[in-house]
Amino acid sequence: LFQQDNAKPHSTCIIIALFRIKSLGAKMACLQSRPIDHFGFLENGTFKQRFLLNDKHWHQKNNPILFYTGNEGDITWFCNNTGFMWDVAEELGAMLIFAEHRYYGESLPFGDESYSNASYLNYLTSEQALADFARLIENLKESISGAQNSPVIAIGGSYGGMLSAWLRMKYPSVVIGALAASAPIWQFTDMVPCGDFYKIVTQDFANSGINCSKNIRRSWMAVNNVSSTDEGLQWLYKEFGLCSPLKEEDVGGFKGWLQETWVNLAMVDYPYEANFLQPLPRWPIKVVCSHLQFDTGVSDKQLLHGIAQAVKVYYNYTGTAVCLNISQTATGSLGIRGWFYQACTEMVMPMCTDGIQDMFEPQVWNFQAFSDECYEIFGVRPREHWAGTVYGGKNIGSHSNIIFSNGGLDPWMSGGVTKNFSDSLVAIMIPDGAHHLDLRYNNQYDPQTVIRARALEVQYFKNWIKHSTIT
Amino acid sequence: LFQQDNAKPHSTCIIIALFRIKSLGAKMACLQSRPIDHFGFLENGTFKQRFLLNDKHWHQKNNPILFYTGNEGDITWFCNNTGFMWDVAEELGAMLIFAEHRYYGESLPFGDESYSNASYLNYLTSEQALADFARLIENLKESISGAQNSPVIAIGGSYGGMLSAWLRMKYPSVVIGALAASAPIWQFTDMVPCGDFYKIVTQDFANSGINCSKNIRRSWMAVNNVSSTDEGLQWLYKEFGLCSPLKEEDVGGFKGWLQETWVNLAMVDYPYEANFLQPLPRWPIKVVCSHLQFDTGVSDKQLLHGIAQAVKVYYNYTGTAVCLNISQTATGSLGIRGWFYQACTEMVMPMCTDGIQDMFEPQVWNFQAFSDECYEIFGVRPREHWAGTVYGGKNIGSHSNIIFSNGGLDPWMSGGVTKNFSDSLVAIMIPDGAHHLDLRYNNQYDPQTVIRARALEVQYFKNWIKHSTIT
Repeated sequence: LFQQDNAKPHSTCIIIALFRIKSLGAKMACLQSRPIDHFGFLENGTFKQRFLLNDKHWHQKNNPILFYTGNEGDITWFCNNTGFMWDVAEELGAMLIFAEHRYYGESLPFGDESYSNASYLNYLTSEQALADFARLIENLKESISGAQNSPVIAIGGSYGGMLSAWLRMKYPSVVIGALAASAPIWQFTDMVPCGDFYKIVTQDFANSGINCSKNIRRSWMAVNNVSSTDEGLQWLYKEFGLCSPLKEEDVGGFKGWLQETWVNLAMVDYPYEANFLQPLPRWPIKVVCSHLQFDTGVSDKQLLHGIAQAVKVYYNYTGTAVCLNISQTATGSLGIRGWFYQACTEMVMPMCTDGIQDMFEPQVWNFQAFSDECYEIFGVRPREHWAGTVYGGKNIGSHSNIIFSNGGLDPWMSGGVTKNFSDSLVAIMIPDGAHHLDLRYNNQYDPQTVIRARALEVQYFKNWIKHSTIT
Repeated sequence: LFQQDNAKPHSTCIIIALFRIKSLGAKMACLQSRPIDHFGFLENGTFKQRFLLNDKHWHQKNNPILFYTGNEGDITWFCNNTGFMWDVAEELGAMLIFAEHRYYGESLPFGDESYSNASYLNYLTSEQALADFARLIENLKESISGAQNSPVIAIGGSYGGMLSAWLRMKYPSVVIGALAASAPIWQFTDMVPCGDFYKIVTQDFANSGINCSKNIRRSWMAVNNVSSTDEGLQWLYKEFGLCSPLKEEDVGGFKGWLQETWVNLAMVDYPYEANFLQPLPRWPIKVVCSHLQFDTGVSDKQLLHGIAQAVKVYYNYTGTAVCLNISQTATGSLGIRGWFYQACTEMVMPMCTDGIQDMFEPQVWNFQAFSDECYEIFGVRPREHWAGTVYGGKNIGSHSNIIFSNGGLDPWMSGGVTKNFSDSLVAIMIPDGAHHLDLRYNNQYDPQTVIRARALEVQYFKNWIKHSTIT
């Protein structure tokens, strides 16, 4: 899963980290002990947190550290998809650290049993993860010679970007600033309209080809019609090249899989060939929409033939997929189950569709039903307002040194901070960027807006570093 | 225990709060449900948090709220000892709220069983208490008509002052500023010298009478000498009027009790008759020292006779004590056991004495021994560096709108913030003030320094309120 999406050697994190192990002379340089519970003292167990470290460009005492606040997945995957940090390391003379989030990748508090029951899962929260990051930074600064006074900047994308912003908000003594890329810190109850997310997805498709979003909007009914007979189910199975035959009870799941496919495409609508959630062509939604240009009078099966061609752009760009599996929509490097637990506890993000302003089947947000589902699966109930309390909701103006970058194509912009609060709490817009495009490697096809955004981000970094210098 | 220390009706908190219950038409207006665990979702129980509310001067929509962040004791006791808030309520048109800290007073997460075992005690942390306060403020603002946009200022003294500062640091969206009176937020490992606390105690005695600290310094050896015979033990028992005979194995505890008495006196060395930890005369250390003026050549028993007279100033000023109990040094309104648990987990405050720069028996700080003691008593071990990580240690310069007030007579000044960080993160010194004198009622004997400090505090409040106004 560590394929390259361009020619640069970004898959070397691990090797460099291993090298670092030797140069530090310590066997566990890439693992550190953390308390399982930072907020209680009865559970006194510890676990090993993984992190990746590169000091190739960090030649001078007190030079800065760029610290990636890992999100819901394997940290090597985020490391490989955050080329921006590798691109700017030399200019800043920066050490790079990528810290893994507890319960993901290899940082499992209870090993293979971590997901086995509610009491083991109890320590999977953003607050615990932030405390892990804070302790890791403090420990590294103590243990690495010359790093004691190094200013640290938090960087993250998506949930990792939320964590970067929150690390600066909650632990301003450990990071001098944060770049929160495509971080929907307001995608919580009563902060933004629940329908905005899917509206942006729809706009992406509407803008990428004639009739594209219209035909997707019509497809749900077409699926309902065609799947109402056994012959139709069989036809869908073959047409989409699914891995297992479609049964009547799978139709809801099938539509959910289609919906998630469109969402994922909106997130990764990058201007060049890339492999983030899946290997994809440049501007993948344009390619998808090229299969959905027919006018709206076609038959259900003609329409769904186009849909099938379209989703295969996402699932089989490389031409190597044997069949399509409707239980998976993205790379296995993401910790889907862990994220679902987090959504079922603190990260409650209301979403809704109306089929009019978006291209999806109408669905209201039903907190109670969501809560019941969570209780059934995990034995816990979400706390609807807690994220707002603990992270300040929309009232974040007293904080400083946080950049919120947003991509105009990215559905997560719906929950992002898109306006400046002050000189040091700023929003950067990248109109033709998808999900945290700014965090990716430089590329010849980069639009001017992302080139400018990255330059501005580095300028803020330099300014923060300058003002933090300890003399 | 709710005796008045001057003529003002400060014991009416409860009655006013009860009245408020009726005017709100809600049975539980002075109690609110809180999650037992804010930082995990498996424990989904709740408990009733108590708070006291007064809106006598809060006549206008959006007027401010002064919010006392309760510390380690019964909230009615803090309410009665925080006259400052009552004195300024009219001028500010402010609502007053006094919130009780979990595990103290009547806010017991597991009722009478709250202290019965390590798993029930697991939720007694400052982070949980801050989350309680944040949720309480949000709930009150939602439920009280006209309070939705009321700016809230946190106020607290001692540990309560630490909580006020931390509430502003961690939840700046709920409080626009904080007055942290005599709050030793730096009394943690590696932040201040462990001997400073006892040096200040010693200075208070040295400055309050000739030979005073010298005779106390000599008294420890005198106790050792006299207590080495049965006759001597019997003599001490009678001379001090103890409640139970002194045995050889009690001598360490007896000296500890004396030491704590001197410390408490240093904390409450107020310029007028008051009853905080005990009912006491004005400038009590002067009175204590009047019994310790003899020159240093007196016999051990003569010396200890003076010490006995001196401690009785503290324990029997009212003349009603039948005997002195060496297992108690202060009001029963303080939750000694709860605070010990907190010291054994996060609130690790290193203390040491050398007998040279202070008047006590030399004692080094031994974290391991302390940790072992904690483990034996509570089954938990303290985390030496956690408070520094979570609350930023000495690196707090990025925060705003916090006043740290310090009394020059108060030993806790040793761990206080005594210098300005910025225009909005300021220190106020009250050279002739003891422990949070500024939080007490106005009094005709108040020194000019505390009068000025209070005026300045109110000025900051007004400035914060002005700049928070939502139009």
